[in-house]
Amino acid sequence: MQNLTVVKIGGAVLEDTASLKDFLLRFDAITGNKILVHGGGRTATQLADRLGIKTQIVDGRRITDKDMLEVVIMVYGGLINKNTVAFLQSIGCNALGITGADLNIIRAVQRPVGDIDYGLVGDISEINIKVLQLLLSEGFIPVIAPLTHDGLGNLLNTNADTIAASIASAMSELFNVLLVYSFEKEGVLLDISDRQSVIPLMNRELYSKFRNENIIHSGMLPKLDNSFKALEDGVKGVIITSSNALDLTKGTRLTL
Amino acid sequence: MQNLTVVKIGGAVLEDTASLKDFLLRFDAITGNKILVHGGGRTATQLADRLGIKTQIVDGRRITDKDMLEVVIMVYGGLINKNTVAFLQSIGCNALGITGADLNIIRAVQRPVGDIDYGLVGDISEINIKVLQLLLSEGFIPVIAPLTHDGLGNLLNTNADTIAASIASAMSELFNVLLVYSFEKEGVLLDISDRQSVIPLMNRELYSKFRNENIIHSGMLPKLDNSFKALEDGVKGVIITSSNALDLTKGTRLTL
Repeated sequence: MQNLTVVKIGGAVLEDTASLKDFLLRFDAITGNKILVHGGGRTATQLADRLGIKTQIVDGRRITDKDMLEVVIMVYGGLINKNTVAFLQSIGCNALGITGADLNIIRAVQRPVGDIDYGLVGDISEINIKVLQLLLSEGFIPVIAPLTHDGLGNLLNTNADTIAASIASAMSELFNVLLVYSFEKEGVLLDISDRQSVIPLMNRELYSKFRNENIIHSGMLPKLDNSFKALEDGVKGVIITSSNALDLTKGTRLTL
Repeated sequence: MQNLTVVKIGGAVLEDTASLKDFLLRFDAITGNKILVHGGGRTATQLADRLGIKTQIVDGRRITDKDMLEVVIMVYGGLINKNTVAFLQSIGCNALGITGADLNIIRAVQRPVGDIDYGLVGDISEINIKVLQLLLSEGFIPVIAPLTHDGLGNLLNTNADTIAASIASAMSELFNVLLVYSFEKEGVLLDISDRQSVIPLMNRELYSKFRNENIIHSGMLPKLDNSFKALEDGVKGVIITSSNALDLTKGTRLTL
């Protein structure tokens, strides 16, 4: 099987052109098949503010009504995705910017209303691994915006971490997949105030321990839950590392 | 050679969901290879208004500063492109929404400043016909937003009529191409106030005559100039027809 690296990029780096370009140069340097999944929540919130649309985030997830969906389609599918593609093309990386609707790559169902009504948010039901494989075989680099579709003509807002993990898991049928979550911090930290306290290696047992002791909490939990789920689903490795100087030898490496 | 139909859609139909869906159903019914190129200027102007960004149009072309470029990237590359793709996917049309930056499909150079400084507007320098051919051979339907890139990391705003004509011309090397301009009117009209006065067939000689007599003027001129240029460049046929009930047997058919 060939190798495939699925990299998720999110957070402040997306808003700073110089940092983003540095990140993309390092992404380009990763050898073999690769896929980039990006977020863009901060920029979406800024545009919503400018348009007088109220942002509501519950448990790290954006409540998405019709107006907010338009905002995220414009920001994720347009502004961030296309600027990223244009920069990658300028350094010879043959990027193709897509959403889950393009070539029917990610199908989702609108999340049922539970305690919270998240609105036009999609839970992934199917990843079209054959089409992704075809794109990769042509040397194309998919750059994926965190939008899915329901097959009925509607786009849906879907968390980028979840998209990255779902693609990594699904593509494990065809590739040896490494999933990389890159974000503001150097990795999973023992002490959130100490950037040097990166946990270099963590298995599920250690994760449970840290979680029980409240050393790892809040925003890291869904990322880590997604990661261990991906490992169970056949992903060969997960690395959580800094987007500032993307280096796959650093950060926190997860194992089962 | 195989056939290829390049359809340009623009104007009011893009703003009316029911009309757009009807148009896309008819687009889907076109047999053989096809490419859709869309505009979206009215929606861009509306978003610019909401953001307090002033719209300036000179000779039908948008002056594009940095803020306006962000608006058109969001509207053309995001909102219109992705909603169109999602609808096409829902009717089984395997659409792939792209800009000229994606897979380096349309390279452009920023327009030199002449009497008017159009700003971040691109004049097309190269169409990547091999990549388009590859996408078509896989049964993918390219849906192209009117944005190009300069190969230096910058997106540029490019007129959708011009993109459609340039793609049609370039692809004539590989396909028998039919170029279809669909818009608000039934075709090229002898009398702008009479929707029934469609000129069914027009060659360059007749066009010169109507132009000299001022029967055809203003907004129709660039469309027709683009069209005759495309015919000279090897496009087999050009049809200018209504987007309201897209029918390739109606409208105005152009010949050299």
